[in-house]
Amino acid sequence: METIPLHASERVDDLLTQQLKIIQSEEVFSFSLDAVLLARFCQLPPRGRIADLCTGNGVIPLLLTTRTKAHITCVEIQERLADMAHRNVRLNGLEERITVVHGDLRDAVRDLGNGVFDVVTINPPYLPVPSGEQNENLHVAAARHEVFCTLDDVVRVSSRLVRSGGRVAMVHRPSRLVEIFAAMREHRLEPKRIRFVHPRADSEANMVLIEALRDGKPEVRLLPPLIVYKNGTEYSDELIEIYYGKREALIDEEMARRD
Amino acid sequence: METIPLHASERVDDLLTQQLKIIQSEEVFSFSLDAVLLARFCQLPPRGRIADLCTGNGVIPLLLTTRTKAHITCVEIQERLADMAHRNVRLNGLEERITVVHGDLRDAVRDLGNGVFDVVTINPPYLPVPSGEQNENLHVAAARHEVFCTLDDVVRVSSRLVRSGGRVAMVHRPSRLVEIFAAMREHRLEPKRIRFVHPRADSEANMVLIEALRDGKPEVRLLPPLIVYKNGTEYSDELIEIYYGKREALIDEEMARRD
Repeated sequence: METIPLHASERVDDLLTQQLKIIQSEEVFSFSLDAVLLARFCQLPPRGRIADLCTGNGVIPLLLTTRTKAHITCVEIQERLADMAHRNVRLNGLEERITVVHGDLRDAVRDLGNGVFDVVTINPPYLPVPSGEQNENLHVAAARHEVFCTLDDVVRVSSRLVRSGGRVAMVHRPSRLVEIFAAMREHRLEPKRIRFVHPRADSEANMVLIEALRDGKPEVRLLPPLIVYKNGTEYSDELIEIYYGKREALIDEEMARRD
Repeated sequence: METIPLHASERVDDLLTQQLKIIQSEEVFSFSLDAVLLARFCQLPPRGRIADLCTGNGVIPLLLTTRTKAHITCVEIQERLADMAHRNVRLNGLEERITVVHGDLRDAVRDLGNGVFDVVTINPPYLPVPSGEQNENLHVAAARHEVFCTLDDVVRVSSRLVRSGGRVAMVHRPSRLVEIFAAMREHRLEPKRIRFVHPRADSEANMVLIEALRDGKPEVRLLPPLIVYKNGTEYSDELIEIYYGKREALIDEEMARRD
């Protein structure tokens, strides 16, 4: 097995899904629960082509490989993160299933093609660029704030990358729901499945999972709320089940039967 | 106390809130949980002017009188229902606090004034008019289907009736959420508080409560899910608490302090 170089501050973590490992760095990029939930939430074809935008260290494509044999192309604008994603692909021996592209997602339609993907996944930065001084380093700031791309950019590009009838799955902050719907409508993506994530059963949602259909008809399903903690700091049974991918295995079998 | 006439098929029910009584008829119009939840959900000023559109037998205005001293004008297009609403107002001795208008909500801005209300509440018909034959009688059909007004009508009129900074509270089906947001944006109503209602903790939402601010800034709060049944057919503790208005009493005290 080849040796994958680690840079200063980086460590290798267990993704707790099959035998997947992941290189990350608290200074530069560590994956969050948001990415894991998106990778479990989206419906996937058994084969075909998937694009993941704002891929960071490639956590979403890594997780998707446990659910589909589709080829995954992931795009990351920051060279340091694209390199990390590339090493993560090699670390897991997935070079034939994942292609990492270092580039600007705003060029993705030109570079990757119009309407050529079955699914696009995206965990974009959630917040507009703040007006004041930013304390964070650029890597951290760009993962949180719309430094390199706006909400409209990610929706527009996702919509052009998928084929008609293809799906775009996104995780975002509920506070921006109205803007997200407006951008999706403008770019011919119709939200079809929505799931809100609440830290506790009696708290407001702090995350929303949205799956939209390119050229779909208006009618959206509001899935049961996903509650993260069952008491204090203990993960709920469903969260644990989702994390280990048991529920999604059933969904994927169903999709494979249908196709 | 004066005697209020009852027509065939009508009965008087207890609204289970203070001493309120309500005339209804299964043949013509009975209130639903949806109306009760909307009447509890919306934030109300202690005084001022409220309009309730598609008022049916007036259940929402009746319930609102327990939470505010504001004057309530309610509009109903069907003469039989407007008459029932009017008798409900008399039955409860609320003639000085509720005015029933028999008319088309599409004329409401002309008849009641532009930007004169602090709050508009509405429990509109949820479904587009079906293409096939309708089995229901007109009263029932008009409560369910957009026979007399479309979603765009109710949003447009609500938006014009409220003052800038006033609130529009609506209950609807989650399946139409994207359309509702689009219509609200078009008519300068910005959704600010949303609550989904799920029959059970593990079922999809079948109702959504939305409160929008006229000329508000984009940013919406996704409240904790409201679960109706805790096991099988027993109402959840929160549903019972909401029904009897305990939580809302606290909200109203807070609003009164702020104003």
